[in-house]
This record gives sequence, structure tokens and C-alpha cells, in this order.
Amino acid sequence: MSVIKPSLPKGTRDFLPDQMVQRQFVMGKVRSVFERYGYQPLETPSIEKLDVLSGKYGEEGEQLIFKVLRRGTGLEALRRGGNEFTVRSYSELVEEALRYDLTVPLSRVVAMYRKELVFPFKRYQIQPVWRADRPQRGRYREFYQCDVDVVGTDSMLADAEVVTIVFDVLKSLGFQNFKIRLNNRKILNAVVESAGIPPELATPVFITIDKLEKIGIEGVESELRKRELSAGQVKEVLGFLQIAGGPEEVLSDVERRLGDQVPAQEGVEELRRILEFSRELGVPDNVLQMDLCLVRGLGYYTGPIHESVVEEPKIGSLTGGGRYDKLIGMFLGEDLPATGVAFGIERIIDVMRQLDMFPDSDTTSRVLVTLFDASTVEASLRFVQALRQANIPSESFLDVVKLKKQFSYADRKKIPFVAIIGPDELNAGQVTVKDMRSGEQKTLSEEAAVEFLRRPDGK
Amino acid sequence: MSVIKPSLPKGTRDFLPDQMVQRQFVMGKVRSVFERYGYQPLETPSIEKLDVLSGKYGEEGEQLIFKVLRRGTGLEALRRGGNEFTVRSYSELVEEALRYDLTVPLSRVVAMYRKELVFPFKRYQIQPVWRADRPQRGRYREFYQCDVDVVGTDSMLADAEVVTIVFDVLKSLGFQNFKIRLNNRKILNAVVESAGIPPELATPVFITIDKLEKIGIEGVESELRKRELSAGQVKEVLGFLQIAGGPEEVLSDVERRLGDQVPAQEGVEELRRILEFSRELGVPDNVLQMDLCLVRGLGYYTGPIHESVVEEPKIGSLTGGGRYDKLIGMFLGEDLPATGVAFGIERIIDVMRQLDMFPDSDTTSRVLVTLFDASTVEASLRFVQALRQANIPSESFLDVVKLKKQFSYADRKKIPFVAIIGPDELNAGQVTVKDMRSGEQKTLSEEAAVEFLRRPDGK
Repeated sequence: MSVIKPSLPKGTRDFLPDQMVQRQFVMGKVRSVFERYGYQPLETPSIEKLDVLSGKYGEEGEQLIFKVLRRGTGLEALRRGGNEFTVRSYSELVEEALRYDLTVPLSRVVAMYRKELVFPFKRYQIQPVWRADRPQRGRYREFYQCDVDVVGTDSMLADAEVVTIVFDVLKSLGFQNFKIRLNNRKILNAVVESAGIPPELATPVFITIDKLEKIGIEGVESELRKRELSAGQVKEVLGFLQIAGGPEEVLSDVERRLGDQVPAQEGVEELRRILEFSRELGVPDNVLQMDLCLVRGLGYYTGPIHESVVEEPKIGSLTGGGRYDKLIGMFLGEDLPATGVAFGIERIIDVMRQLDMFPDSDTTSRVLVTLFDASTVEASLRFVQALRQANIPSESFLDVVKLKKQFSYADRKKIPFVAIIGPDELNAGQVTVKDMRSGEQKTLSEEAAVEFLRRPDGK
Repeated sequence: MSVIKPSLPKGTRDFLPDQMVQRQFVMGKVRSVFERYGYQPLETPSIEKLDVLSGKYGEEGEQLIFKVLRRGTGLEALRRGGNEFTVRSYSELVEEALRYDLTVPLSRVVAMYRKELVFPFKRYQIQPVWRADRPQRGRYREFYQCDVDVVGTDSMLADAEVVTIVFDVLKSLGFQNFKIRLNNRKILNAVVESAGIPPELATPVFITIDKLEKIGIEGVESELRKRELSAGQVKEVLGFLQIAGGPEEVLSDVERRLGDQVPAQEGVEELRRILEFSRELGVPDNVLQMDLCLVRGLGYYTGPIHESVVEEPKIGSLTGGGRYDKLIGMFLGEDLPATGVAFGIERIIDVMRQLDMFPDSDTTSRVLVTLFDASTVEASLRFVQALRQANIPSESFLDVVKLKKQFSYADRKKIPFVAIIGPDELNAGQVTVKDMRSGEQKTLSEEAAVEFLRRPDGK
């Protein structure tokens, strides 16, 4: 076997222990909030049938689906020196593909297990997805998604619960300055309709509005002018985008302008209920904002939509979600109301790293127990087991070598405490404990040492 | 979009909430033991370069690797009605593949990050792997592996630590009657050599020995006779297989018979050290057994090997591992000693389900707070938040509908308690709590209700 220089496929990453500890910290917090709200975990296979995924992500998305090669196609002959291989149909080579998101699998699960599931079905799912995208800074071909959804109710309390979960998760991760922006697709539709813009232009107009943060109000204005919109239409749309103020002010203003349109009235009413329920669920008033420019992509949303953003650094949204009543029934042939939110878990981890929000310890051991010499190995092993039984992550060194080498291991692994049992300690039934950061050391009875290491310095 | 009947690819599974809760229970226990021993998490991408995986799993394994189709090959034209497509080289279509195990990725990581990693490198990894195997009962195309390894030391203390982790994990999962069987490849090699069996027959002989549990000693005898072994050789091998007794008895017997051979002497010495260290690390004597028939596949083991088995049900081993000093350096071009164990996590979950070892609760909510009518919604939402703040997984119903429907939801989801705030409770600042199993109910102040639900019935 010749030695090849190993490397990673484009757009993929290894997570070494330091990063893994941070990732597990975030996933653990997130999960514990979800479960406190009664959401249950779901996992689906990485591989789905291609016809389950096909036709769900638009033409561009379709191309980004990673396809899996069928087995036993005869193609392998080429590896053994065959000349050429003629393929006559695509399905001859491919019938399966890697998961592209967590929404289509949820729809498939709802259709396949409809009778077993209890509705409203409240589930969360945290798993990787794959996209054959051009890799670039912060964009990967394999990354985790983290979705929370309620399927089977059109109650605005479900939407408010989802918004409250966003608040609770970001709080529990330590975010201080963040806002949750709300809007409603029904209001956006009504704005376009009321301005007399033809329905086929609605999507391009939304795309432009979505860019407000990037290109500013002038940018939006000039882009709208380039579309086939009249000056009056542009003015009317811009007038809406500039409605500002507290949530109730904004909603009253919308109502005043569009109150004669049923969808606008519904949209305002839905947002009022979400605001009211969220307040009752404990979300502080200053966290929720109305943002009439919020579009949330073009996709499948049918009602209230929301996203959360931090003030610094400016890096887009941490979460995005909303109601999508026409999507989840795609395999049922009938609509099933649903609402939910996706946590941009990779971005959240990046931001927390930038803001230095992770707890100090990036190693999993708190104590290294050295092996002083052959005569003290047994006592040292018994002591490391006593630490583990006290739930203190600990390791012994694995060889009797110079203490210097053992200390250097602790140092490089950033293990904060080293415990030494030499012949003197052995005779006295004691342990010497050294704090690697301060350099302080003290000699204690074994029991006292366990107590001390359990929660050193009250931390 | 036409509605297709959704289904799963062959050999894959969805994990609905009930199963997920069990899986998370096992993964959580396992991880917490690993971390208590100072092992750190590692994750690698699902997709590896094909030439990283190629040539590592034997001819049969090679065929089971799931290959991923390259993007932009032109093959897509067939989906749009093209006639045929001629492939001239395999790499034109494929250069990447799905992870087949966790060992090759570990070797790759060790080679790529050798300077950053601290050795001995103690890592665990719990991730799915994919094999295009013929699906059958209990065998899947996508399944989790769970590996713990120490790379960079030849100390027998590392092997003993791994054995101790097996003991601790199985104990913490609730297993009572299990044994850890030990052997050493060096002893097996010495047996074959001492019997004068030519080296090229060693592997077939090991394959036969490995079947002892299935085909019995007579079966092994008749299969060995069919190989090109003399009657004397068969007798000598069988003589070894029948050495029984406590670990020290067996080792002394081996020493007596093969003590003049260096490898046998080394093998015995290594096992003695493992037994001694394991005892010092707290593994009870009756758990460890010497089993000279243990082979552990044919693979890459070079020294001590071990597996753990439960007495009932008879379903093969729960864990398997050993020392493999020639493998992990495959991308380095030099040997790096390593030892570790793989937990058969899917099988462990199956056995625990069969033996009914999972804790009772298979739902994540403990309390459903009903919505009695519009006037009590606010109080009900505040109460459900109080429960969540007390870390009690809880949910409110999401709609004001008939109480009967709300109770039926709790019943179907097996939520053990229902809390009701009606107009009377609202006026009195109270909550009525109903135990869904016993039917008992009582009315308490909100605070008392939170206290009661925190740990009802002392559970």
C-alpha cells in the first residue's frame, strides 16, 4: 500500500477536540431548551431516494443535491482497466441522494407515520445536510442544520412558542444584544397588491426588498425603478418600508393604510396575537421588532415570518423561520399547517467564537494524575478512579516516564490540575495537587484532594 | 408537483421520538464515561476522498463503499432526455465516497494534524458509517459506530484503561451479567508456529477457531482436518483451545507450553499487566476471562484483543477491540502504536430494548398545561413558563379546544401530568394537577404545584 498524502474533500471540515467541545456545548444547550418546551427528537437517514428529494428545491437547488452511485452498475469495470462504459439512463447509475435539508425529510416522515404520530407533532432535528455548492468562506458542503417545528395546528400560539424558543435559546447561549424581527407574508402580499403591482412581479419585488440591509433604501429604490414599476408604485412600496416605530405603532399604521384588504387585516391580527402570546410567555418587549422589509427568502412561507439578529458582529441572521401551511403535506396530497424555525447553528458557533462567548475550559480533563514510579502506580490508579467516581473528568498518565514529560502533557492539553503520588505521599496516604495556572501546590489527604478537585476555587 | 408515495432507501431507518429518546440515553451515558476518562470528541466529514478510503478494506469491503457522484459530469443530460453518455474513466464520475468506518478517518486525522495533536491522543468518535451491504435483519446500510482509541503509546496501561472503560460503560447502562474476554494475537501466532503450521495457513486456521462458539469443538476439529493440517497439528491446536480456568491458570499453562517462544512470552506478559492494571482500576476479577479461542476478525490486531458479551440474549459481542500497532500510521509511512475499542452501539440499543433496560419515560414532557378558555390563557402560559424555568419539561396545549381533546393528546403522548387553570383556579391563584396514571387530582397554589411537579412521588 503506497502512502498517499491525505486531504479532505472540498468544503468539508474535521472537528478536532477543541472545536468539538464548543459544538457540543451549543448543541447541548439548544437541545435542552427544545426539550424543556416538549419538543421531541427526530433523526432521518442521510440517504434519501432521489425521487423524494427531486423537484423540491428549484432548478438551482436540484443541481446541488449530492447523488449517490448505485452499486453493481458495471461501472467498476473502468477501475479494473475497462475502456469505456455507456450509460443509457440516469437511474441506471443513481437512485439515491444525500439529505439536502431537514424539511423534506420531515414531510416524508409525516406522510409515512401519520397514524403513529400525535398531532400537533412537535419535533426538533439536528443533523448534517450536504450541498454541492461552490465552497467559500463560511460556506461548506457538509454542515449541520437545526430545525424546530410544530406540524398540524394553525394556532398563533405555536408561532409565539417558536419565537419564545428562539429567545430562550439565544439567552441560554449567553447572547445579550439581539432582536427578533417579525413580519407577515400576508402583509407583504397586500402591499404589492394594493400598489397595483401585477402578481408576477411580486417575487422580484420581494427579492429587492430583501436586500434593503445590504443596498440601503436608495439602492432598493433604484432597483425597483429598473423593474417595470411605475414611479407611483415605487413610492407606495417605499412608503411601507419606511413605516417605523414600536410593534403596535407599525401594525396600526399598516391597518390604517391597508385595513380594507382581508389578507392585510389577517396578517396584522396574526402578528398582534403573536406579540401578545410571546409577552405572556415572558419575551421582553424590547426584543421583538416589527420589520416590514423582512422577507425571509422566497420560499414557502405563507404567514408570519421572523429572524433574529445580533447587533455585533454584523453577519446576518442567527435564526430564521415562520409559518408554511402549504409545504409539509407535499407527500400527502393535502395541506397540513406548520410553523417552525431553523437555527443557523454553524453561524451561531462562529459568532460565539468571535465574541469569545465559550466557557474557559476547552479540554475535557480537569486533573492529570502522574505516575511517579513503579511503586506508586497502583495508588495513582486507585486515586484517578476515585476522581472519576466523583464525576471529575480525569486521566492518569499512561507510562512511567520523567515527571517533566508528564507535566508537559498536562500543559499542552491545558489540564488545569496535576496530582502526584510519590513515595512520601504514598506512605502518608496523601496526594500533592498542583494548580497549573498559578503554580501553587498543596499536599492533602486523598479524600480532601478529591473534595478540593471537585470544585476548585469555587468554580 | 405530483404526489409520490414516499419511502426509505433500502437498509436505512427513521428514528421517531420514542426511539430517539432511547438512542440519546445510550449515547449520553457512553459519552459521559469517555469524558470522565479524559477522552476527547472528534468528528470527521461524512464524505472522504475515494483514494483515502481505497485499498483499506479488502476487496469485498471496497465494493461496499458508497461512492458519491461528481458534480458537472454531463451525466445530468440523461435526465433531460439525452440518449446515452459514455464514461471513459471512473474518476470522471467519482472522486469521493461516504465514510466506511471510523479508523481510516482517525489515521487521516493523525497524519494531517500530527503537530497540533497532543500524544498520546485519546479520542472518541460517535458517527454514522455507510456500507452498501445486502440489508438483512439487524444489519443496516447506515448505522452508528462508536470508537474509543489511544494513539501513540505502547503501554499496556492504555489497553487496561480501554478494558476498564468497557466495564464502566456497560455497568452504567445497567448491564449485570457480562464478561470481558481477553486474548493476545501474539499467543495465537505462537500456537500456530509451535504446531509447525506454515504461515500462509495461519489466517484460515484463525478463521476456523473464530467459529468455535457457532460450530463447537467438533466442528472446529473437522474443519481443521479439511485444511492441509496433519492430525498432530490439529491435536496441538485443539489442545490449546481447550485450556480453561481462571486467567492466571490459563496464562501459566500457555507459558508452560510455549514459554520458549519470545512472542508467546510477550503475549502472556502483556496480558498479565492488563489484568493487574484493570484490577487496580477497579474491574472485578470475575468480569475478566481468558479465552484462547478469541480471534476478533482477521484484521489489523497485533497484540492484546478483547470483546464483551452478555449471557442472555446470545447475540454476539457488545464491544470488540485490541491493540493495532501497524495500522494508524498508514498515511504517515511509519508505525504508530494504538489501542482501542468499538462499541456495537446499535446492537447495545437492540439488546437493551429486548431486556427492557430503558427507563420508563419515553416522552420528553412531564406536564401538559391545558388551555381552559380564553380568560385563562394568560395564566396558563405563565404557569407553563414557571414549570420550564424550574427545568420541568412541559408544554401547553396550543389551542383553546374541548378539554377532552387536550386530555387525549396528553394520553397519547404519555404525558404523566395534566395541569388545569379554570376560572375558579384563576380567581384563587391555584392550579389543579391530575396524575394521568392514577387519575388522582389535587388543587394547589401555583408554587406548590411547581414543587409537586418537580419530583412527583419522590421519583
